[in-house]
Amino acid sequence: MKALIHEKKAGKEGLSYCEMEELLPKEGEVRVRLETAGMNHRDLFVLNRHKESEPPLIIGSDGAGVIDAIGPSVTNITIGDEVMINPSLGWIEESDAPPKGFEIVGLPFHGTFAQSIIVPAENVTPKPSYLTWEEAGVLSLAGITAYRALFSRAKVKAGMNVLIPGIGSGVATFLLQFAKAVGATVFVTSRSVEKCEQALAIGADFALDSNSDWTKNLQGTKMDVVIDCVGAATFNKSLSQLRPGGTIVTFGSSTGDEVNINLRDLFYGQINVLGTTMGSKEEYIKMLQFIELHQIKPIIDRIYPLSEYEQAFLRLDNAEQFGKIGFHVNS
Amino acid sequence: MKALIHEKKAGKEGLSYCEMEELLPKEGEVRVRLETAGMNHRDLFVLNRHKESEPPLIIGSDGAGVIDAIGPSVTNITIGDEVMINPSLGWIEESDAPPKGFEIVGLPFHGTFAQSIIVPAENVTPKPSYLTWEEAGVLSLAGITAYRALFSRAKVKAGMNVLIPGIGSGVATFLLQFAKAVGATVFVTSRSVEKCEQALAIGADFALDSNSDWTKNLQGTKMDVVIDCVGAATFNKSLSQLRPGGTIVTFGSSTGDEVNINLRDLFYGQINVLGTTMGSKEEYIKMLQFIELHQIKPIIDRIYPLSEYEQAFLRLDNAEQFGKIGFHVNS
Repeated sequence: MKALIHEKKAGKEGLSYCEMEELLPKEGEVRVRLETAGMNHRDLFVLNRHKESEPPLIIGSDGAGVIDAIGPSVTNITIGDEVMINPSLGWIEESDAPPKGFEIVGLPFHGTFAQSIIVPAENVTPKPSYLTWEEAGVLSLAGITAYRALFSRAKVKAGMNVLIPGIGSGVATFLLQFAKAVGATVFVTSRSVEKCEQALAIGADFALDSNSDWTKNLQGTKMDVVIDCVGAATFNKSLSQLRPGGTIVTFGSSTGDEVNINLRDLFYGQINVLGTTMGSKEEYIKMLQFIELHQIKPIIDRIYPLSEYEQAFLRLDNAEQFGKIGFHVNS
Repeated sequence: MKALIHEKKAGKEGLSYCEMEELLPKEGEVRVRLETAGMNHRDLFVLNRHKESEPPLIIGSDGAGVIDAIGPSVTNITIGDEVMINPSLGWIEESDAPPKGFEIVGLPFHGTFAQSIIVPAENVTPKPSYLTWEEAGVLSLAGITAYRALFSRAKVKAGMNVLIPGIGSGVATFLLQFAKAVGATVFVTSRSVEKCEQALAIGADFALDSNSDWTKNLQGTKMDVVIDCVGAATFNKSLSQLRPGGTIVTFGSSTGDEVNINLRDLFYGQINVLGTTMGSKEEYIKMLQFIELHQIKPIIDRIYPLSEYEQAFLRLDNAEQFGKIGFHVNS
């Protein structure tokens, strides 16, 4: 089968689109003939985390396709089932943190940027029929991250003011859609005028230039919740928009990890700073029920043939996308 | 009446023990003839926050005494009632943050370091009969802070590992006693060998030198909760002791406000950083019921005659105390 693998060299230089052997699923596993796969920022990190001395790795965490082989002891799954892949390996029940042994599809185990993948049977879920293959393929990792951040962690409800700095990424567009679906008022920021306009077009109530004076632009409106994946560049600006008792959830730091915070602001403000990443299978199922109930479809930026992966990586690296970037794995 | 007032000069130089006029309670207020008062770190901050241009202020947030005058429209309170003063002004129901207008006894309104005080009737509560005047006088501010930090915020329960850096302050000793009362395992730190020994003597399970390598000393035991009021000196050491999904509550920063944190550690660790300060009347009443149920008495460091306030301030300033410092206001 054709696959996008990483080997030998750190970074994008170690990527190649080539032929890989197709295996059979073992005990408790299934094989999925993939239709589509989705890109995430994680794919960029993996290129540096996957060691040069290790065997070739098929990267990619998101995908959807059709069951084409079933290992021993697998029940309730039939060849021909249309499924999505939940990339959280080994985290089943909702809990305050993943259990030991938790991993994400695509490192250290082979991922979705290939014509097929073998995963534990518990990691496939029926594809909602209202989603196209493209939509199903780009949904999982960003969808579960957004769902846990907004609902399990920040307890976002109707009527709340929610700020999403850095609209544009896949997770950020899900955050916007999910928060609007429950009746929150959603504020977004971007350095790009075009992304601000796109966010308003898909339902944001207010869009700010990331580089502007937020306090001035918000005219005293304070946030119940900020969901920040931008990191160092926005963290303190985000904190300063919270009402007393407000909550900031952090799940990414694309502009840097290290931030200087003032503890006095936290304790006098009764602020909650909550870290989150990924989510359990229980939350994944809830997320799928939630999007089906609200008929939410992922915002798709572009779908590339997998063979044109270089353009896709460049687009993600330059943060040019609005919504999810995906692949057709069979072209 | 005799009172400890602050005026004209910032800091301790503005303090004097002198005669102040005694007034009558107005609508909805009561006057308490104080027996005892309690010191807090807040008293040190107030000396710098109370402006030199403002009228003389009686400082102090904690006190207990006997009702000796009742203003119009006050019901259910009788002259002669033995009461404690809840220093949270205007925060009645438990909520994620105090309402607008919230203040603390002792700034901007006169405080407890005097022979009497006038407070809203809603801020007095019957003194539990098992407490002495000295115990009742030093309890309120630290008790409510500890209660909200441990239970409303961190949800501490039996079986949890709880770390309290900087044992010695009044709040820290309450944290230790309250956490032990619900069946938590309690770890403390101090730079003082003597304070470590004192903490072990009143129930701490494990005491560490604050300057040691905590990770090494704890031998892999991770904390469900850290309650940190030390601030900059310990914050990152505290964070690194948390289990995945663990919680750090911050309510003070005696060693500095500014800390550099790593967001990646927060989100991969699914960490909760929760700010807190003071608490509502609802939590104050729960705290009093809790200590009565468990027959908890404040750890008293020293009680001074109010006229010897200089020694008391010096002792607090040098962090020499273990437990609460209080005053007899009538000597």
